[in-house]
Amino acid sequence: MKYRAEVMISLKKGMLNPEASTIQRALALLDYQVDETATIEIIKFSLKAKSTDEAREQVDQMCQRLLCNPVIHNYQININSGDE
Amino acid sequence: MKYRAEVMISLKKGMLNPEASTIQRALALLDYQVDETATIEIIKFSLKAKSTDEAREQVDQMCQRLLCNPVIHNYQININSGDE
Repeated sequence: MKYRAEVMISLKKGMLNPEASTIQRALALLDYQVDETATIEIIKFSLKAKSTDEAREQVDQMCQRLLCNPVIHNYQININSGDE
Repeated sequence: MKYRAEVMISLKKGMLNPEASTIQRALALLDYQVDETATIEIIKFSLKAKSTDEAREQVDQMCQRLLCNPVIHNYQININSGDE
């Protein structure tokens, strides 16, 4: 069966986020005052698995082996069954 | 009043996404077969505004002036009232 997976990757608390700081500084230059800027990346894909649990287990392995750096990232996995 | 804004930025249909292709190829090298890989970026920040509508209007301006490239990106704005 086909599943849609969504991995949300954010930086752990206390990690510097240069991208977010740059955005905030650039917005300030345009006279927009914003605070607590953060960025999150979402990676979406579809995969085949026998069950939701198996799909989640596979995606978790992908996160640990490739998609995330567990030292600096938090990640959250959402699995939806595809539309077949 | 303080609002939390969330901007979801994705590539328009038909745009090449080299980041997603690279992820998909790298996963294939590790023997994970995935399809329809896409990436989305979320930028979160808090801002001050008089109403939700004003906040949304401001964030929309930020998107058009700095955060997004309307030629290649779709964006979606979520505004939540802060917890004060």
